[in-house]
Amino acid sequence: MSRFWNSRVRGLDPYVPGEQPRMQRLIKLNTNENPFGPSPKALDAIRQAADEGLRLYPDPEGSELCQAVADFYGIQPTQVFVGNGSDEVLGHIFHGLFQPDEPVLFPDITYSFYPVYCSLYGLASRTVAVDEQFRIRPEAFQPPNGGVILPNPNAPTGLALSLAEIEVIVAANPDRVVVVDEAYVDFGAESAIALVDRYPNLLVTQTLSKSRSLAGLRVGFAVGDPELIEGLQRVKDSFNSYPVDRLALAGAAAAIRDQEHFERTRDAVIAERGRLTSELEVLGFEVLPSSTNFVLARHPDRDALRISEELRSEGIIVRHFKKPRIEQFLRITVGTPDQNDELLAALKAGGKA
Amino acid sequence: MSRFWNSRVRGLDPYVPGEQPRMQRLIKLNTNENPFGPSPKALDAIRQAADEGLRLYPDPEGSELCQAVADFYGIQPTQVFVGNGSDEVLGHIFHGLFQPDEPVLFPDITYSFYPVYCSLYGLASRTVAVDEQFRIRPEAFQPPNGGVILPNPNAPTGLALSLAEIEVIVAANPDRVVVVDEAYVDFGAESAIALVDRYPNLLVTQTLSKSRSLAGLRVGFAVGDPELIEGLQRVKDSFNSYPVDRLALAGAAAAIRDQEHFERTRDAVIAERGRLTSELEVLGFEVLPSSTNFVLARHPDRDALRISEELRSEGIIVRHFKKPRIEQFLRITVGTPDQNDELLAALKAGGKA
Repeated sequence: MSRFWNSRVRGLDPYVPGEQPRMQRLIKLNTNENPFGPSPKALDAIRQAADEGLRLYPDPEGSELCQAVADFYGIQPTQVFVGNGSDEVLGHIFHGLFQPDEPVLFPDITYSFYPVYCSLYGLASRTVAVDEQFRIRPEAFQPPNGGVILPNPNAPTGLALSLAEIEVIVAANPDRVVVVDEAYVDFGAESAIALVDRYPNLLVTQTLSKSRSLAGLRVGFAVGDPELIEGLQRVKDSFNSYPVDRLALAGAAAAIRDQEHFERTRDAVIAERGRLTSELEVLGFEVLPSSTNFVLARHPDRDALRISEELRSEGIIVRHFKKPRIEQFLRITVGTPDQNDELLAALKAGGKA
Repeated sequence: MSRFWNSRVRGLDPYVPGEQPRMQRLIKLNTNENPFGPSPKALDAIRQAADEGLRLYPDPEGSELCQAVADFYGIQPTQVFVGNGSDEVLGHIFHGLFQPDEPVLFPDITYSFYPVYCSLYGLASRTVAVDEQFRIRPEAFQPPNGGVILPNPNAPTGLALSLAEIEVIVAANPDRVVVVDEAYVDFGAESAIALVDRYPNLLVTQTLSKSRSLAGLRVGFAVGDPELIEGLQRVKDSFNSYPVDRLALAGAAAAIRDQEHFERTRDAVIAERGRLTSELEVLGFEVLPSSTNFVLARHPDRDALRISEELRSEGIIVRHFKKPRIEQFLRITVGTPDQNDELLAALKAGGKA
C-alpha cells in the first residue's frame, strides 16, 4: 500500500489470471488456450504486416477487422467494436454502458473478472445463484438492475443456455444493457448475435483467444446496436485511440476469414472433449456437460486441490478455484490427444496411490 | 446520444487523433510518426514470434520487455510498467494515481488527451499558462493539486525543460504524483528517469511510437518507484491482464536493445529538423526551437488553416489545432529529406500565389 495510490486503487482486489509458466515442458491445461495452433493464413498476414509500415499508427477503428467480423456474421460493420482482447472490451462496457444507480447482475458462479470491473468503476453488483445442477436460471435476471452480464456458455461450469433462454433475459430487461460474453460459444452454443437486430439493449462479446487460437494476439470484439457501439467508441477514444496494433488487426482479420481452419480445429476440440469426458467418467469423475473447450470435473472421493497438486508434480497444470460451491471441482482445458492421454494416465496413477 | 449510455459516456468529449488516411500517396506529416523505419531486429523478432506460440497468452507482466527497459536505463525491472501504448499507461495513471480531492495540473498548451482522461475518470483539472514564448514555467506548478502532468519536451510546442527545471516541479510536490510524459524526449531533452531513485513521487512515461518508430505496435512504459509501479499493476490487473501481445513484447524488446539503429535514426531526424527549421525560416516562418521530431511554425502574413488546406490539396497533411494561442501555428512532423523538400516546395509555391 502506497500513499500515492488513490482510494480507487486501494480498494481493488485485482483479478488473478491463470499462471503463465515459463517452463516449456509443462502440460498447460489451466487457461483454456486452444491446443491446436492458429490459422496459417493469420500467421502469414502477421509476417506480411511486420514491415516498415509499423512506423505508422494503426487504423484507430480497425475497420478491416470490423468488416471481417461483419461478413462472418452477416451484419453491418457499424454493429462491431474491436478491442485489445475481450477483457478490454468488457472493461469499456462496465465503464460506459452499465448504470451506477442499481447493482449489476451476474451469476454467482461465473467469470471472476466481473466483480473486479465493478470495483474498478465504482459499480454495485448482485449475484444470481445458479441452480443445484449449476445451471443459470434465465428467469432470475430481473429489473431493477444497472445491467446484466453472463457468459454463454458459462465459465467455469461449461454449461450453455439455449438462444431462447438468452432471449428471456434480454427481453426482461429492455431498459438496461444485457451483455452475453461468448468467449467459448463456438465450441457448442448458439450465438446471440442472431438477436442483435431485434434488441437494442443486447451486446454480445467474443474473443479470438479460444476458438481462433490467438490468445497471444489480444483481440476481442463486441456486436450490438450501432448506438451501443458508438458508446464504446466514445470510451475508447477517451482512453486509447489505437487499442489494436497493426499486426493484431491483420492477423485477426485473416483468422476470421479462414473458415476451413476454424471449423476443422473447432471440431477436433469438440471430439477430444467428448473423449476426455468419457475417460474421466470411467475414472469415477463427475463431469458437467461442457459446451466449451474445458471441462469442470470432480471426484466423489478425492480432494480437488490435492489432485491439482499431484498433477503439478507430474508437470500438468489444471485450474482449481478456492471458491464456494466449486472448490471440489477442477477446470481442465481440453488439450491435444497426447496431452489428454498424459493427464488421464496421471489421474489414473494418482487414484491408485 | 443513446439512452443506454451512462452519465460518464454522455459527458465525454473524446480525444480526436490525427487523421490516419487510407490513401497511400499522401505525405503524412500530421501525427509525428518517425520517417525512418523501425529496427530490422525488431521486425525479425516479430516474424520469429509469429508462430504456433500465439495460441498461448502472453506474459501478463511483460517481464522481458521490462528487463530490456531496465537494462537500457540502468534501473531495476521493478521500476518499469509496460502497456498498450503510452496512452493506456497514462490512462491508468489518471485512474489510479491522481487524487480526486484537488484539480490535476497541466500546461494550458499541451497534449490534448489530458483533459479527456480527467473527464473519463471524474477528476477536476486546472491549466497552468505557458509564458509568452510558450515556455512551461516550472515554478507555477504548486500544491495543492491532485497530481501534475506535463510532457517534456512539451507538445505541440516542441520546447523542452532542463532536468533542473523538471526537478523544481517534482520537489515542489512531494505529496502528489508528478508525471513527466517523455514521448519525444529522445529527440533532444534529458530524461527525468535520472531522478526516479531520489523522488518516490516521480513517474516518467515513454513510448516506442516515436524514436523507436513503432507507432503501429502500440507499446509504452512508465518508470518510477516500485510502489507507483505496483499501483499501476493493480489497475492493469483489474482491467486487462494481458495488455501487450506476444508480437509487441518481442518487437519492443528487440527495438530497445538495438542501440545502433536507435541512435542513427534519431540523429538523422535531428539533422533533418535543423534543415527544415532553417528552410522554413528562409520562407518567412517563425519556428519554435524544437527538441522533438516535429516543429511548430507560423507565418506572419499567411493564415495557418489556409496553409494547411493548400498543403492538403497538394497531398501533404500537417496538423492544425483550432485552439487559443496556437491557432495561427502549424505542427509539422519532420519527414524524410524528400518529404521535407516536397513540403518546402509546396509552401514556397503557396507563398507566391
